Amino acid sequence: MTQRIREFLRNRREDGPCMVLDLEVVRDNYMKFASALPDTRVFYAVKANPAPEVLHMLATLGSCFDTASVQEIEMALAAGATADRISFGNTIKKERDIARALALGVRLFAVDCQAEVDKIARAASAADIDDAKVFCRVLCDGAGAEWPLSRKFGCDPQMAPDVLEHAYRQGLEAYGVSFHVGSQQGNTEAWDSALAMAADVFRACGERGIILSMVNLGGGFPTKYLKDVPAVEAYGNSIFNALRRHFGNRIPETIIEPGRGMVGNAGLIETEVVLVSKKSEADEVRWVYLDIGKFGGLAETMDESIRYPIRSERDHEGEKAPCILAGPTCDSADVLYEKQPYMLPVSIEIGDKLLIEGAGAYTTTYSAVAFNGFPPLKSYVI
Amino acid sequence: MTQRIREFLRNRREDGPCMVLDLEVVRDNYMKFASALPDTRVFYAVKANPAPEVLHMLATLGSCFDTASVQEIEMALAAGATADRISFGNTIKKERDIARALALGVRLFAVDCQAEVDKIARAASAADIDDAKVFCRVLCDGAGAEWPLSRKFGCDPQMAPDVLEHAYRQGLEAYGVSFHVGSQQGNTEAWDSALAMAADVFRACGERGIILSMVNLGGGFPTKYLKDVPAVEAYGNSIFNALRRHFGNRIPETIIEPGRGMVGNAGLIETEVVLVSKKSEADEVRWVYLDIGKFGGLAETMDESIRYPIRSERDHEGEKAPCILAGPTCDSADVLYEKQPYMLPVSIEIGDKLLIEGAGAYTTTYSAVAFNGFPPLKSYVI
Repeated sequence: MTQRIREFLRNRREDGPCMVLDLEVVRDNYMKFASALPDTRVFYAVKANPAPEVLHMLATLGSCFDTASVQEIEMALAAGATADRISFGNTIKKERDIARALALGVRLFAVDCQAEVDKIARAASAADIDDAKVFCRVLCDGAGAEWPLSRKFGCDPQMAPDVLEHAYRQGLEAYGVSFHVGSQQGNTEAWDSALAMAADVFRACGERGIILSMVNLGGGFPTKYLKDVPAVEAYGNSIFNALRRHFGNRIPETIIEPGRGMVGNAGLIETEVVLVSKKSEADEVRWVYLDIGKFGGLAETMDESIRYPIRSERDHEGEKAPCILAGPTCDSADVLYEKQPYMLPVSIEIGDKLLIEGAGAYTTTYSAVAFNGFPPLKSYVI
Repeated sequence: MTQRIREFLRNRREDGPCMVLDLEVVRDNYMKFASALPDTRVFYAVKANPAPEVLHMLATLGSCFDTASVQEIEMALAAGATADRISFGNTIKKERDIARALALGVRLFAVDCQAEVDKIARAASAADIDDAKVFCRVLCDGAGAEWPLSRKFGCDPQMAPDVLEHAYRQGLEAYGVSFHVGSQQGNTEAWDSALAMAADVFRACGERGIILSMVNLGGGFPTKYLKDVPAVEAYGNSIFNALRRHFGNRIPETIIEPGRGMVGNAGLIETEVVLVSKKSEADEVRWVYLDIGKFGGLAETMDESIRYPIRSERDHEGEKAPCILAGPTCDSADVLYEKQPYMLPVSIEIGDKLLIEGAGAYTTTYSAVAFNGFPPLKSYVI
């Protein structure tokens, strides 16, 4: 909660939940990444929060952009990024979207199988483009992450040299390797085993005469929710040491893709208590219903994965007691925290405002278009 | 898949996934409900699909509307429903939204606790309205449902008479009881124990001199996904018998709130295969990535609850093999079916169109506003 956000909310008159993001915090985060990993290029993961003001400020600061779709590429370009600073980082792309990205000047693409390489090769060839680059994403176990990744993205490391060789033979530049250690990764050492794997892929490709240049270290840098998280410098040191350990004095070009770590702590959501009730007189736990829920922007509460800090103006009033927190929709799945109830003040009342902190990432765009007729989450960037 | 939808899709030229809904099927469904439960008023659950064409046709046919928000009330009114045919069925309402609903002429409200009663009483009193009615939702175990309900809505049946008496004392009409047997309820007998409970609440209120009039039988009427479901007539018979069993010859006024059962089978989603791949050469199961996923409208695949029938033009080409189905976003949680993979033709290829059937309910409005830059699911009502 910054002073600027506090003042903004004091003057806000509109109804309904909103997310307010302080650009100065984003600037500060960018600077920390840049100084913690001075030889690494920062590709901001646009999907975390694509607000034009965020993209524009990061573009001005010199950031590059990791994008998931042609729409996100267009947003980054509109914010002032040049195409050479944009990566099409989704491993799942329609061939016509690849063609559009190439036409917009983008040359860097993620792949995790030969079929995706074929699409890029065909689209590049059709447009007479001979400098398209691909990096191959490899699977990584994600231990230590709060929002661990499934096997959806990446191939087994043993398959990566085949994918990269295939790209090379199709006339693309086999540029490097990427991985993702899992979102909200609390273990600064998590990059070590992934970098060992990346070095293996570099060696296997080298034996086939293919010289890779780049390791994409992915995202995973945490934002502070309920628990403290290590500082960015600790991640920087640990990554640098792991690079030295596995690549010796031939350290490759590196990039990182922070999303949550760039904007998470810059934003918060203001929400209103709509109802406080019990299911029976004997119930010990209150149900507290908010005007935002799983379908209004808090999708990451799925399986109670991300536990946001929640503040109330009554926090100082003494006693707290457990609550089940739920959203306002007529969907029984729209319950935020039940298995592990939240402690909130006993004195909490209908109409109270609560602040959900660390909500700058993965909230606004997740919001449902009109479920139950509720409008999508409002966003203010200040 | 109706002939009208087939022709619409044959002529469609736009890119991206879409939901197409055939109004004639909705009409047919409405007629079946009306004839299976001739003495019961139908309140269509607007949240299932609020397309203006659907609301307009149902209004013309004589349907009433169960709404979850002021926005849904406004949609129903705009479609031609009169306010006396609208219920504000969400038990979680802001007091100012109740006031807006009252100003729009709505008089029927759901509650499940005394605090919600107080809001309605205050809003009605402030507007000098003396004919507001409330029904109290009670908890129900939901056994037999594919999308079972949590304890989010409703109070223990023992508490219901207190809530209704409180309404009565606050000058509201204590109108009745509601429950929900769970969405996609496959057991036609599921209403029996709920009606026994409702009859107990009627009796307990009667002993306090409060005469209830109405039982809201809720929704839960299934649509056909992979498994066959009982016909609406079977539900009608079973419900009628249960009413006789528990209310004797003093059968109350009844209403039902079908949503999925009204529109589910009227719509389908056309999607494109974006990628087919394996994670390693040894993998037996293919990953099939579609251009729609959990955040593009298929939220009900959460925990693999709803298993939609999926058709391919290659279904007749012989051999099928298991696939993991996933969406197009850079979110590892955007996997549709993995624990129980789907059987799809071995010959399936990138660029193929697939049809996801039974997708007329709970799809379009669940769609994320712009996650990963992807636009919300397009909807065509024909």
